[in-house]
Amino acid sequence: MAKQPKNAISPRRDEDYAQWYQEVVKAADMAENSPVRGCMNIKPWGYALWENIVDVLDRRFKATGVKNAYFPVFIPLRFLEKEAEHVEGFAKECAVVTHHRLEKGENGGLVPAGPLTEPYVVRPTSETIIGEAFSRWVGSYRDLPVLVNQWANVVRWEMRTRIFLRTSEFLWQEGHTAHASEAEARERTLQMLDLYEEVAREHLAMPVLKGEKSELERFPGAVNTYCIEAMMQDRKALQAGTSHFLGRNFAKASDIRFQTEKGVEQFAWTTSWGVSTRLVGGLIMTHADDDGMAMPPRVAPAHVVIMPIAKDPEKRAAVMEYAESLRAELCAQTYHGRNVVVEMDDRNVGGRAWDWIKKGIPLRVEVGPRDMEDNAVFAGRRDTPGHKKESIPRGRFVADIAATLDSIQDAMYQNALSFLREHTRDLDDKDAFYAFFTPNNADKPEIHGGFARSGWCGSSACEEKIKEDLAVTIRLIPFDQPKDPGPCVACGRPAGKRVVFAKAY
Amino acid sequence: MAKQPKNAISPRRDEDYAQWYQEVVKAADMAENSPVRGCMNIKPWGYALWENIVDVLDRRFKATGVKNAYFPVFIPLRFLEKEAEHVEGFAKECAVVTHHRLEKGENGGLVPAGPLTEPYVVRPTSETIIGEAFSRWVGSYRDLPVLVNQWANVVRWEMRTRIFLRTSEFLWQEGHTAHASEAEARERTLQMLDLYEEVAREHLAMPVLKGEKSELERFPGAVNTYCIEAMMQDRKALQAGTSHFLGRNFAKASDIRFQTEKGVEQFAWTTSWGVSTRLVGGLIMTHADDDGMAMPPRVAPAHVVIMPIAKDPEKRAAVMEYAESLRAELCAQTYHGRNVVVEMDDRNVGGRAWDWIKKGIPLRVEVGPRDMEDNAVFAGRRDTPGHKKESIPRGRFVADIAATLDSIQDAMYQNALSFLREHTRDLDDKDAFYAFFTPNNADKPEIHGGFARSGWCGSSACEEKIKEDLAVTIRLIPFDQPKDPGPCVACGRPAGKRVVFAKAY
Repeated sequence: MAKQPKNAISPRRDEDYAQWYQEVVKAADMAENSPVRGCMNIKPWGYALWENIVDVLDRRFKATGVKNAYFPVFIPLRFLEKEAEHVEGFAKECAVVTHHRLEKGENGGLVPAGPLTEPYVVRPTSETIIGEAFSRWVGSYRDLPVLVNQWANVVRWEMRTRIFLRTSEFLWQEGHTAHASEAEARERTLQMLDLYEEVAREHLAMPVLKGEKSELERFPGAVNTYCIEAMMQDRKALQAGTSHFLGRNFAKASDIRFQTEKGVEQFAWTTSWGVSTRLVGGLIMTHADDDGMAMPPRVAPAHVVIMPIAKDPEKRAAVMEYAESLRAELCAQTYHGRNVVVEMDDRNVGGRAWDWIKKGIPLRVEVGPRDMEDNAVFAGRRDTPGHKKESIPRGRFVADIAATLDSIQDAMYQNALSFLREHTRDLDDKDAFYAFFTPNNADKPEIHGGFARSGWCGSSACEEKIKEDLAVTIRLIPFDQPKDPGPCVACGRPAGKRVVFAKAY
Repeated sequence: MAKQPKNAISPRRDEDYAQWYQEVVKAADMAENSPVRGCMNIKPWGYALWENIVDVLDRRFKATGVKNAYFPVFIPLRFLEKEAEHVEGFAKECAVVTHHRLEKGENGGLVPAGPLTEPYVVRPTSETIIGEAFSRWVGSYRDLPVLVNQWANVVRWEMRTRIFLRTSEFLWQEGHTAHASEAEARERTLQMLDLYEEVAREHLAMPVLKGEKSELERFPGAVNTYCIEAMMQDRKALQAGTSHFLGRNFAKASDIRFQTEKGVEQFAWTTSWGVSTRLVGGLIMTHADDDGMAMPPRVAPAHVVIMPIAKDPEKRAAVMEYAESLRAELCAQTYHGRNVVVEMDDRNVGGRAWDWIKKGIPLRVEVGPRDMEDNAVFAGRRDTPGHKKESIPRGRFVADIAATLDSIQDAMYQNALSFLREHTRDLDDKDAFYAFFTPNNADKPEIHGGFARSGWCGSSACEEKIKEDLAVTIRLIPFDQPKDPGPCVACGRPAGKRVVFAKAY
């Protein structure tokens, strides 16, 4: 048996998937758990990735007419109470502000003082407080549609947290729109879902499925919840974005009314949609490997690292000059509308290259006296097995940089797509379905199953039975439905829909 | 006596300055007071201005090596307590999270439940929580400097709030750096102060004074606090940005230690620096007039509005086509690194032009059948008295757009600079000083005084006496000091420094 090559990340994915994830986050220096319960410190390398995701999304939102705005972080209790399902869904896990001062207590420490007459909730989502604003902004059909988005922090007091994937505080965008007609609101809901899918595919190299949530998985207060779902490398699903058609539920709760062109007063139709820093966790679990993170070039914090090598001190100045001029040439190139971002690592330490492999930079370049002589660079792609490098003429490397980055981007997407396809099954037989979601001896307990496309009769009872038996949920109901969805995988009755089941984060 | 021309904003500045400010914010549709005590809803037109300020600052920060990161919104009480002056300064007005759940109470309403063992404070500033991270990030001189910045919301429970200028929640950036030497930390502190001054001058068209705060006005826990101060149109000062040299106070409180090259363990030297959405209030009070807001072109949410005029329905299509092609040509031009931003207002309502004057867009363009015939545009600058418009050949208008915008930007800066100079006095005589800061019959009570450059002996007693008598404070101690600073304006003793006194927001 061949000796298992040593990897940069220990444990490997197949040894302990959950621990591997934590180690990748740490090795890439993207974030860390904070001393504040369930919250994280997002470190510069992780935050720069998020900034690039924000930038891509923000441009696309604006291109559809959405404008950014900002609303308070605090929500008065009476606002949250306005929508019955909504409060039920969010009151169980929220941070409550009850005082507005601290005073010296009896034992000298600080204690809360200045009790508030009405406590505030730190926003878990902003439908209610934005709805209050819309109720004042909207009076006539001429004021519609209102299309706003907010980049903000939100807090949900989660019991079990995992860095990026489920944290008590996270960063997100929440779009909120109000419309004069149901059709227009429904169109906007699906438009934003499509936008999320495109950004996931084109920029994050993350293939996702699109569809609707079942009633049990719906956003509290929504009429329809749509989502994109990605497959992680443990074959679990990650809900990577949601778009909600809220009907007139929140308009009625917040009193968002308008006069139609004919002078009739009506409630508006609203939508909301969001993605969060969870996407960063999704990117890690899609692209990272046993050597650490791999950044899709289009959102990578940096594209290339240059590592000058000059053991001979006499040659150091010349090598540095060669490296600096290479940097300047690369930075003058553009890749998808932004200048190529180059890191220069001239630290004189061992393991430099491994540091950058773990951080997932798309391209590593070493330049030494020999490369100078050849007017070449010694370059390696993050997606090359064994991290092999090759000598490339310097001019060609610079001229091809955008094409090389796109080639890495494509390879990453194709790799993830193959994985998704490999672990997606059409399963009509109940036993096969149960076997698919039950670890067997050949599996690591954490890595098994995948996405099962199966029939579902539409009853919540069947959905809950499967959840109880297997911890498997309906991730989504695809838009394209076969003529014959087959039998319900739980009860065997004719299925109303063919849906996607999976274990999920 | 000439009839006073009617203005778009009522009351005028000289009638009721405070109310004028509120009306400008409202007329420009930039923000509104929210139902959450002391908080605001920042509306799209106001938020877009903030986004442009953020963009300018963010690029400049990054150019100095600063990287963005993100830290939790909650600060454990024990962290806040670490630095004695700091907790004293911030514990009096903060939002305290004491529970993590809501439950149905006796009367059916929701009540806080799930009390926390240790309450959290919603961050009023993040020195303590970022310091905790630095204590883990820094071990050796090789880890220094650490240069991070955070864009975030912060909460200070203010008693008297005023939209943008002083709100319970506001948006800001807070830079935090740690260094191996005092000299390097001091240099960074002043570098960021200079950066703020440049951005205010070059992008916000806002002249500011630079200097140091007196001990009484220092940031709680800082060794030195530096600031930029701008003059508002009621001649009061607005602190528009601060940069703090924190010495080793927070490093000791948070245990940020490192090994020097020689292996000696030392505490690091830290800095922090920030500007906030308060800058938006400062821009309004610097540039707005009795007709509403005036946006400096370099940070304006949009540069040009095109208003097609076609009373004759038969000519409407042709005029719209002319307007659309003009828009396309303008959008293809660049102004200071971004494409010219154009609004098309084809609403068929009266008062369109006034709406845009109130919003402060730098250029308004009307195009009608006559302009089409002449291949011209009928254009008006926001800074032209009486909002007069003139016919300009279309090609020249497009080709000159960047130069025209720069001319508006320059005029706005010069206008603000003249105002600052006009209301800055050198005052050595105590009576003259007291008279300067006391409204007389010729003044409106709210609009009087200005900046007084006067001697100060250095004692907090004199500083407090003037504050008590006149509500005037030392805004800053300028870096350039005259050889003879003159007598202390309060006690008459020889002054140690010549300082700037003013009433302030």
